[in-house]
Amino acid sequence: MSSDTKARIQAVARELFVRQGVRNTSLRQISDRLGITKPALYYHFASRDELVRSIVQPMVEDIERFVAQQAPGDARRLLDDYFELMWRHREVIVMMVRELSTLGYLDLGARMFDWRRQLIILLLGPELTQEQHIRATVALGGMSDCTVEYAHLPLDVVKPLAVAAAADALGLARTAT
Amino acid sequence: MSSDTKARIQAVARELFVRQGVRNTSLRQISDRLGITKPALYYHFASRDELVRSIVQPMVEDIERFVAQQAPGDARRLLDDYFELMWRHREVIVMMVRELSTLGYLDLGARMFDWRRQLIILLLGPELTQEQHIRATVALGGMSDCTVEYAHLPLDVVKPLAVAAAADALGLARTAT
Repeated sequence: MSSDTKARIQAVARELFVRQGVRNTSLRQISDRLGITKPALYYHFASRDELVRSIVQPMVEDIERFVAQQAPGDARRLLDDYFELMWRHREVIVMMVRELSTLGYLDLGARMFDWRRQLIILLLGPELTQEQHIRATVALGGMSDCTVEYAHLPLDVVKPLAVAAAADALGLARTAT
Repeated sequence: MSSDTKARIQAVARELFVRQGVRNTSLRQISDRLGITKPALYYHFASRDELVRSIVQPMVEDIERFVAQQAPGDARRLLDDYFELMWRHREVIVMMVRELSTLGYLDLGARMFDWRRQLIILLLGPELTQEQHIRATVALGGMSDCTVEYAHLPLDVVKPLAVAAAADALGLARTAT
């Protein structure tokens, strides 16, 4: 019964966190939803942070197990398995992305999606197949990561390589750079 | 003099925000650093939020101008220009990524970089060229975005397309899926 309550708290918390963000969700809301008292909730989780940790923890363990257990080898299979791993935890990933506080209070999250959608249409036209849409997401999302990860390197080094990889992801015919 | 003070406040704030995160930076720290009084700072920015907005705003305007002014056409050139745009604002992007509060207090940011590094070595071996490293960042970052953006679609639809795009970004020889 006790561990059942714990799992129910996590399920409701996860749902509220994904829908409205961690910071907009109080322990009071969670206990109210479950029809339990706040002390009953505190018995299982001393704070909201502890509750968030307990929800994120399985993903952390899964990723750590994955990177520890893989043997180098078939890169395509590795991409495959890694994608499934992230997919399994996509609710937690969404939850974390939602918590981009700066995006949140600037309402930039929705606008960024909108900008990206417009860019994709510019790149590939308005009539998109699902494949084109997904390829464009990989290309633009991947380039964006490069500007953060290689911020310390010169633009002249990073840009041609990142753009070439994005163009390949997009399936553009290779042209001279 | 007044607009000069404003720019100095922004410069110091940006530096502290990037280095230690927005939420760990108080207006007091900023005014102390500048050797001005807190009221003098408040004269220009009524709150930390307003200061953050003023720092993020040029990026927002730049992106909005970019997507509004582009004509569909040469996709490679568009990727090129978009990359430069993000690169120009990479400090702000880093600042926003740092503010992933959930990552922050779970200390996941550094671990995610570590996982990704391990994955890249698994994919391409320990002796990486800069090109391979950047291509892997595009591939893994792009796939990760897909799990968020297409979380509502079936795995069977998203995975083969995202993995194929990532494999192309990585420069893997195309194999039958």
